[in-house]
Amino acid sequence: MSPFTDIETLSPEECVRLLGSAPVGRLVFTEHAMPAIRPVNFVLDGTDVIVRTAADSWARGLNGAIVAFEADHIDPETHTGWSVVVLGKASAVTDVDALVRLNDPSRRPWAPGRHDRCIRIRAGQITGRRLVRTAA
Amino acid sequence: MSPFTDIETLSPEECVRLLGSAPVGRLVFTEHAMPAIRPVNFVLDGTDVIVRTAADSWARGLNGAIVAFEADHIDPETHTGWSVVVLGKASAVTDVDALVRLNDPSRRPWAPGRHDRCIRIRAGQITGRRLVRTAA
Repeated sequence: MSPFTDIETLSPEECVRLLGSAPVGRLVFTEHAMPAIRPVNFVLDGTDVIVRTAADSWARGLNGAIVAFEADHIDPETHTGWSVVVLGKASAVTDVDALVRLNDPSRRPWAPGRHDRCIRIRAGQITGRRLVRTAA
Repeated sequence: MSPFTDIETLSPEECVRLLGSAPVGRLVFTEHAMPAIRPVNFVLDGTDVIVRTAADSWARGLNGAIVAFEADHIDPETHTGWSVVVLGKASAVTDVDALVRLNDPSRRPWAPGRHDRCIRIRAGQITGRRLVRTAA
């Protein structure tokens, strides 16, 4: 325990602002009845998280599932930082207009290969915590 | 997609080495039947992951559960990095000798409050991937 840190609960607005500042997040889901987690890049569409993946991959099972998406930034030197978690239902985006609108060239998937599946996580709950320094 | 990146599968030995280099990881579990994720610091005991938490917290439900633990390091500039996931059964460490041995003062929990619960994740499966640059 670091005696000079405290936990603050973040407002939903602050959570969304911090999410928008994160270059990468982690998708948490169930795969073969086991917990699974995978770093992904993403874009925000309002409060929804949009992830692009390969169509023939682990992502097939996501459609209709409740998943979590987490981003954080923690400084290992100062032990301060934040973590935001979006919990919501994942669904495949198939509408062409939406696919075009959501295709941010600066946020294209990093992994090689085609990424023809676009997943929307409809934010049902957004929670966040910040670890801050307190006065000694 | 970044055309100059490729995915390499990491050996279990490389996964453990990278885990040992990570200052923080993320515990993935089920809470109220929903996927949950939380950044934590940790120590390695062989290939097992040891996390210390508050005794009266979300961690109570972990004993006996299959959980995932992930650490990663991804460079948002170069789109290269690695991610390692440990999948295994979580159990409370209650043996006093083990508690003393596992108490690494440099890796004490960052969050405020007492952290009297020590959780061992017995590594049943360790997998890792590395995103690397390939020649153009």
